[in-house]
Amino acid sequence: MAIKYGDFRTVSLNKAGTAVCIIDQTRLPNEVVWRDLTTIEEVWLAIKTLAVRGAPAIGVAAAAGLAVAANQIQAADFAEFYQKFCRLKAYLATSRPTAVNLTWALERMKRVVLDCKQYDLLTIKARLIAEANAICDEDEACCRAIGENGLPLIEGCRAVLTHCNAGRLAAVRYGTALAPIYLANEKGCAPKVYADETRPLLQGARLTAWELQQAGIEVELLCDNMAATLLSRRAVDAIIVGADRIAANGDTANKIGTYNLALLARCFHIPFYVAAPCSTIDIACASGRDIVIEQRDPDEVTAQWYARRMAPDGVAVFNPAFDVTPAELITAVITERGVLRPPFGESIAAMLK
Amino acid sequence: MAIKYGDFRTVSLNKAGTAVCIIDQTRLPNEVVWRDLTTIEEVWLAIKTLAVRGAPAIGVAAAAGLAVAANQIQAADFAEFYQKFCRLKAYLATSRPTAVNLTWALERMKRVVLDCKQYDLLTIKARLIAEANAICDEDEACCRAIGENGLPLIEGCRAVLTHCNAGRLAAVRYGTALAPIYLANEKGCAPKVYADETRPLLQGARLTAWELQQAGIEVELLCDNMAATLLSRRAVDAIIVGADRIAANGDTANKIGTYNLALLARCFHIPFYVAAPCSTIDIACASGRDIVIEQRDPDEVTAQWYARRMAPDGVAVFNPAFDVTPAELITAVITERGVLRPPFGESIAAMLK
Repeated sequence: MAIKYGDFRTVSLNKAGTAVCIIDQTRLPNEVVWRDLTTIEEVWLAIKTLAVRGAPAIGVAAAAGLAVAANQIQAADFAEFYQKFCRLKAYLATSRPTAVNLTWALERMKRVVLDCKQYDLLTIKARLIAEANAICDEDEACCRAIGENGLPLIEGCRAVLTHCNAGRLAAVRYGTALAPIYLANEKGCAPKVYADETRPLLQGARLTAWELQQAGIEVELLCDNMAATLLSRRAVDAIIVGADRIAANGDTANKIGTYNLALLARCFHIPFYVAAPCSTIDIACASGRDIVIEQRDPDEVTAQWYARRMAPDGVAVFNPAFDVTPAELITAVITERGVLRPPFGESIAAMLK
Repeated sequence: MAIKYGDFRTVSLNKAGTAVCIIDQTRLPNEVVWRDLTTIEEVWLAIKTLAVRGAPAIGVAAAAGLAVAANQIQAADFAEFYQKFCRLKAYLATSRPTAVNLTWALERMKRVVLDCKQYDLLTIKARLIAEANAICDEDEACCRAIGENGLPLIEGCRAVLTHCNAGRLAAVRYGTALAPIYLANEKGCAPKVYADETRPLLQGARLTAWELQQAGIEVELLCDNMAATLLSRRAVDAIIVGADRIAANGDTANKIGTYNLALLARCFHIPFYVAAPCSTIDIACASGRDIVIEQRDPDEVTAQWYARRMAPDGVAVFNPAFDVTPAELITAVITERGVLRPPFGESIAAMLK
């Protein structure tokens, strides 16, 4: 089934507010499976198993899941409702404990309940549905604004290189790094996109290549270690990536392999752009030195995806989930509120002021 | 079965000259399978299917295979013997047509036959066995000399990083890039080795990690895109790789991903060493611009090794087999005849003079 660009939201609430609709990312790129999640347990599992992934998409899925589940609560009064609501919220929070957007979205839903104390339960339930839809709409608008702000930077590019998946599958629609590409595509002038496969979890191969192909945008896959050769052939005019966390000085944590690309960009004098919503900026984090990098399971490198193990038993594995790209390697940070330029310490402070 | 360093030759002729003994590299790292190849078809298939791989090992396997098969020839006179010998040789040459060492080894065997015209067939057969054993011994001695010449360069290194497999599994014993490590290990002072997994064919994960683990040398595996983070932590004191072809000016073709590492080495001020036999130097090739890079099958990136496809059907794939590292990024080239330093145009010419 070919789904054309603009036809779908990666995650959304159905009209009746009775189901969270997602595209199951664990089945891509081999199968396009849409799922209606109608219980809190299904939503929890979808987040846990990465059927929904990407910080913005996780936040929306959690809010929508909580709205759906709250709608099913049987309670005699507000106190009982609130107790049951908090239990559901606490349960969903355990699906991916380190995802900042998950906590943020759940807290926002809780505030709605507390702000509506004086209303009847039906009204509160309707407000929760409305809030989940608002979170969903805001994410789409935010990504579109990132795309609009980034569009002038990729104007005239024949091809760009991206890493991991910071595309529509990581958000409701448009994505972050890929948002300028999608907006250029709407104008009929999308550049070709080279997609790093992104070891070890292959988000580039599984997700980025798929979503761009669906949108009719020319995409070519490469292994991460092939970027130097590609750039040396002058085949790429810009590199554009997403971000997991941006420190106050502009240092950027993102999927492992990003730092490698940023160094190559400098070697070959190619602009290196980071695209992310302002919420990614962690002003409490002074620099990249304050960002703790999680080491992940060796099996992701040695066994996952494979028909049989690809490395000897017991071998030590260096498997950091993220790396930190120093601010001095970044040409610009594209946000929904504008394009930040170096020195980032100043431009970030000015924007958030 | 744990095999300790020094216990095996990757490829060799048995004492009777009736079989080529190999470790089947298609079964590593999950199974250690030794095979006695007794027919020309088995040798052909072993080379074709990469059960034997690595330029030096392929040359030895071809010479040994031709000796074994020639030994089985039934012929009334030299003319008939020579005709049958040439047919076997031509057949073996088709197993990996682009492997320079294969052609070189087969031509050397043919010279033996022509030089022995005047002798009886039994003597010729014995001379072929002796020549195959000589090629095998020479390879081992050559790699050991590379190791001895490289040893001073890695002295005092706590850890080195390598790419692909230029170890004992690529040769008879010792290997090229890993030869200095093995010699340091004999002295009880081997550095830790970080091994790039080396997408798409995973020679680092499957082979390098396995052979170093067997030798009791500390090894840690990483995905290719993690090298920048590793180097930024000052965890690596040198990078050492093999070579597929070295141009007259020092530009070096090697497994895809090598160029990427050489650029990172420069970024982090880490020495970058190439270790290879002199036969790798192609003096007819003026610079890297003259080296044609083969594009390989997209399935290597999207499907090979995996339980299911990891990229959408029909996606374009950039999959060059090799890259070319410019000479100015190379600190030294370690050969069996000595260590070459920049300017390589001059040092290479002086050594080959």
